[in-house]
Order: sequence, then C-alpha cells, then structure tokens
Amino acid sequence: MSCDFLALAQPGVQKLSPYVPGKPVDELARELDLDPATIVKLASNENPLGPSPKALEAIRGELAELTRYPDGNGFTLKSRLAARYGVQAQQVTLGNGSNDILELVARAYLAPGLNAVFSEHAFAVYPIATQAVGAQGKVVPAKDFGHDLDAMLAAIDANTRVLFIANPNNPTGTWFGPQALGDFLARVPEHVLVVLDEAYIEYAEGDELPDGLDYLAEHPNLLVSRTFSKAYGLAALRVGYAISSAQIADVLNRVRQPFNVNSLALAAACAALDDSDYLARSRQVNDAGMAQLEAGCRALGLGWIPSKGNFIAIDFARDTAAINQALLREGVIVRPVAGYGMPNYLRVSIGLPEENARFLEALARVLGA
Amino acid sequence: MSCDFLALAQPGVQKLSPYVPGKPVDELARELDLDPATIVKLASNENPLGPSPKALEAIRGELAELTRYPDGNGFTLKSRLAARYGVQAQQVTLGNGSNDILELVARAYLAPGLNAVFSEHAFAVYPIATQAVGAQGKVVPAKDFGHDLDAMLAAIDANTRVLFIANPNNPTGTWFGPQALGDFLARVPEHVLVVLDEAYIEYAEGDELPDGLDYLAEHPNLLVSRTFSKAYGLAALRVGYAISSAQIADVLNRVRQPFNVNSLALAAACAALDDSDYLARSRQVNDAGMAQLEAGCRALGLGWIPSKGNFIAIDFARDTAAINQALLREGVIVRPVAGYGMPNYLRVSIGLPEENARFLEALARVLGA
Repeated sequence: MSCDFLALAQPGVQKLSPYVPGKPVDELARELDLDPATIVKLASNENPLGPSPKALEAIRGELAELTRYPDGNGFTLKSRLAARYGVQAQQVTLGNGSNDILELVARAYLAPGLNAVFSEHAFAVYPIATQAVGAQGKVVPAKDFGHDLDAMLAAIDANTRVLFIANPNNPTGTWFGPQALGDFLARVPEHVLVVLDEAYIEYAEGDELPDGLDYLAEHPNLLVSRTFSKAYGLAALRVGYAISSAQIADVLNRVRQPFNVNSLALAAACAALDDSDYLARSRQVNDAGMAQLEAGCRALGLGWIPSKGNFIAIDFARDTAAINQALLREGVIVRPVAGYGMPNYLRVSIGLPEENARFLEALARVLGA
Repeated sequence: MSCDFLALAQPGVQKLSPYVPGKPVDELARELDLDPATIVKLASNENPLGPSPKALEAIRGELAELTRYPDGNGFTLKSRLAARYGVQAQQVTLGNGSNDILELVARAYLAPGLNAVFSEHAFAVYPIATQAVGAQGKVVPAKDFGHDLDAMLAAIDANTRVLFIANPNNPTGTWFGPQALGDFLARVPEHVLVVLDEAYIEYAEGDELPDGLDYLAEHPNLLVSRTFSKAYGLAALRVGYAISSAQIADVLNRVRQPFNVNSLALAAACAALDDSDYLARSRQVNDAGMAQLEAGCRALGLGWIPSKGNFIAIDFARDTAAINQALLREGVIVRPVAGYGMPNYLRVSIGLPEENARFLEALARVLGA
C-alpha cells in the first residue's frame, strides 16, 4: 500500500494545471513524422533573427569555466544593468527568465488568505504562480482585450498584496500609455506591490508606451520585470530581471535560488545588452513582419487585435481548434489561446518574411479547404 | 512615505538568511587586487578536470537555437535518464540544479504547521527551502558528524511531511551503508517523503554505499535527487534531477517553472551522461587527490572527517576564521563551515594535484606563521 502523494501536496499545488508551452518543433516532427527543417514555429514569441553574434562570442568565452558554479550574485550583469538604467545594483534581482521573477514575488508576498489582482487575458504565469502558493487570483474583466486599470483598482481589497500588469500584454498585444500608468500608480495603495511586466517593452518603446523605470523613484511599491528572452534573443538560456526598490530586491534575493541564473546566461546577457545593432534589427524585422501579417489578415478578411508586441492575436470569429490542427498538419506551429479565454483567436509570433509568408500561405489553404 | 516591504513579506521569508556560496575567484581578485590566474579555488566542490569535451561539443551544437525556448518537457534528457536507470520517463523531474529539486519538494509538500526533518551538519539548502515556505525544520543532532538515522526516525511526528538525508553528506563527507538505508526506509511512515540527496554518489558508488534507485520500487515515498554539477562537471549550467514515483514527479512538475532547465544544460547533460571516460577520470583524480590531502593533513598533524565526497572537512581543533582569512590572502579559497555548526573545520574540495599542493603549501605557511 502506498500513500496518495497528490492528496498530501499543498491544496494550491493539487489544483495546478501546469503552463502549456508552445509546441516544440521536434515534438511536432515526432508526432507527424515531419522533417524538422520544414516546420515553421511562430508559437512562442521567439526572436526570429537567430542568435546575436556578440552573445555567441560571450558564451564561447565562458565555456572553459563550465565546471564552476555561476557567480550567485550576478555581479557583472547587475552592474551593467544598473549602469544602463541609472539605478543601483542593489535594486536588481536576476531571474531564471522573468518567469522566475514572477514566482519570487508570489512566494515572498502571497499566501493563503491573500490575493493577487490581474487582468483577464493576461499571462498564464500570473494565475499559476498565485495558485502555487495557495493565494487567490482576482481576475478583472478586460476592456477591448486590454487591462481595465480602473476596474483593477476597484478589485484591490485589504488582502491584496500583489497586482500584475503587463505592458504590452501577452497574448493580446494591448498596451496603455504614460498618462494611464501614472494615474494608476498614484491610486494604488502603497502596500500593494505592482509588478509591471515589460517582457516586450523593447519592441514597443516610444511615445505611446511609458518606460516603467521612470516611475520607480516615485513609487516604491513598483517592480519592473524584463527579460532577455524576446528582443535580446536569449530564450534558450533563461535570463530575466527585476528592478525595484533595494528593499524589495533584498527580499526577492532571499527567496531566489543561489545559482538561479547559469554562467552562460550571465555572460550572454552582458553581451546582448551592448549589442544595439541586434536590438535595432529585432525591431525592424518585427515592424516589417507585423505589417506583413496585418496585410495578410486583411487579404484573408480576418480581424486582429492591434499589437505592440512581437506577436499578433488573429480573430477567426469562430473556434480555432480545428484551424490550429490543420496548421500543424501544414507544419506551421502557432499558439492556441483558448486557455486565455480567447477560443476564437490564434496568437502568431512575428517571424522572418519567409516564415510569415509560409504561415499566410498555409492559412489560406486551411481556410480555403 | 513608503511601506515596509520586508514586514509585508511572508514570515518565513523575512527570517531567511540566503545561502552563502563559495567565494568566486573574480570576487577575491577584486577584493585583494590579485591576478585571478594565481588563485586556487577549492571551495565549491567543483570538478577540477575542466569541461568534458563531449559536453562542449553538445553545447556548440545547440548554439544555433539560442533564440528558442528550451524543451519544457526535457523529453530527450528524461528519456536518456530513464533508459540509463531502468525507470519510466514519467518518474523523472528535471531541476535547475538539484537545489531546484529540493525547493520543488518543499513548495509542494511543506507549509506553516508542517515540518521537515534533517540532520545537524547537513546541506544548508534543506533549512532554507523549509523556512522559505514557512514550515518548521527539525534538526536532529548528528552522530560522529554523520546522520543519526534512529534519532531522525524518532524525530518524525504527525506534522512531518519531508525528511532530507544525504549520502554521502555535504559538508561532512559521511555516509551510511545499504543495510542502514534499507532498515531506515522500512521504518519511515509511508506518508513522509524521504528525499535522498545523492549529489556526490558518483564519487562513492561501491559496496559501502547503496544506490538509492534500488530502493524506489519498494518505497513509493522515496525520492532520489542527483546532479550534473559535480562528477559530471556541469555546475555552470545548472542541471539536476529527481527520480521518484510517477505520482510524486507529476506533483513536482506542476510546481516546476515551465522552462527551468536551459537548452544548453539539457544538451550538455545528455552528452555528459554518455561520457564514461570523463566520469572515470573524475573519480581517479578525486581518489588520488583525497589521498594527497589526507597525507598532507597527516604531515601537518591535522585530523579530518573520512569522506566519500569530492571534498574533505579538516579539523583544526580551534576556530578557523583566521586561518581561512590567511588562506585567502595566499590566494587560496576554501570553505568555512561555521554556518554548519563546525567552526573548527574548513571544507576543502579535492583539486588537481598541483592545486592540492598549492593549498597544502599555503596551509603550512599559514599554520607556521
């Protein structure tokens, strides 16, 4: 006889449904017996440019130290980020991807009896991280697929400790402007930690979107989370970071695993941060690809949600499960978002021109069939 | 005015003292203005051989995919581990180092009101992971620096959910045999999850030490944790794993971050697993280095705790803080273990013959001064 180790798990954990990632190319190739080289993956908001040569060089320079533990303090990367953004190194927390940052916040500040507020159609890790520690997730209905900041403010109660917002938001691509963010932060109670997830900010910087870091000095309850997985092209390596008050960073660093970011990630992120050419090309390719996909949708008579990310949520005005399956058979992987309350949409990451074209051609065949 | 975000953190988190890693070479070089190339680090139980060429080749083969997320399911590595150890892939949980495994267990099975049992002088992450989730750590006095398994059994109460044991144990190097493990597991209540930490098992396999995996079939409350950071030489990359019942693995995989293990780690670990030459050399260098350090201690009139790990705890019969500082000034980094209740000891990792000699010469100077 053996015990039931599911029943023995913490209540929040028992009810967890793990995050469902974009289907890997190799997995689809195995399932459908396809040549991986013929598959186009536009499912995980990855950078289609391929690796930055400077990041690759930094990784190669670090390989001799493979048997050594990483610098658990991330001294060099934190110093570089601090210098770049005009903050102190003690304000920086490094994460094993920004997913790690979101979990550190949940584990430090949430527990049974407390709650986190986030929007409908927001990143799946907010509810997962909240539930994993047994806290309640308060989901606020979205407005035109974007965050309804007024409604989010109204949802805050005495047990709210964390509020997750994303700008731009994934998987919708929606965003809010500087005025909206400023007004919002001015009204959030000071005991509520606002996690501003800017995973896609490098694609979106400009007049229309605020730079969250500009608001840190005035709002000690603000934490800005960013990642090297998107515009910097280092998704494989897992490196993200938070910038906050030094006190919040100190708390998160207590919860952080001592070697949560690997050595190659630390080295590559330093190099990527300096690779302004790569970042500029990432934006150019993204802007052009976005225009290409919008034009393709228009030609096919499809709607979409205007997006400031490196992806676009396309509106098929009917359940997309069968369309997604048909695309997979065409060797094209996109992201179903029914789990985000958007069964009529598919989220498509912006690829290279030829990848976008492959997707649009496959889609035309699928819709025509 | 701003809120106190330390006071707002969870009680267990507020009291956390983060893990103190071995001092990195670069940090000592900065502090004492030394040439990093002249520093010998024997502080973190790292493999002194340098990287496995097969692991390096695997990493290079993966670099083109740097912009892609890792396979969140770790399909290939889990399949290889399962084949190697004669278990099902569903019994495997991959971790960002085995540190991650220990934390997944704590987060899944511990909470305020519950407790974990572990030994005095055991790995610092057991109490940290336990406290981080607000559970109680029940520390059982050691016997001759090793685990007192009978006393650990006696410490189990109705609120015990997890028991951490290490074989061999770090930082003492002590171990227990097959008979002791079998008798112990037969007496642990079935609702208590036994985490058998075998981070150093590859240095110790043989008649004297049991292979924890042999006990899994009979004990569904057993989890065996292992790492690629030691004998496999991949500390920089962060990859560890657990083998347990499929049910426990399913629970841990719910708590696991979706991309907790990076792509280069997955590829390198697969290659390292097949690199039997590297593993054999790791053991040879370790056996020879252990003999060298034991002989050196004998010549200096120092005692030590007999060790089956890749490190040795040397007994100075007096507080070692000053000796440690003097060694640092000699450019030799070893590990103070006062935080493990062993103020009279220093833990020294086994290095290459010339590194061990450098340490012994520096130590002779320090003790002679």
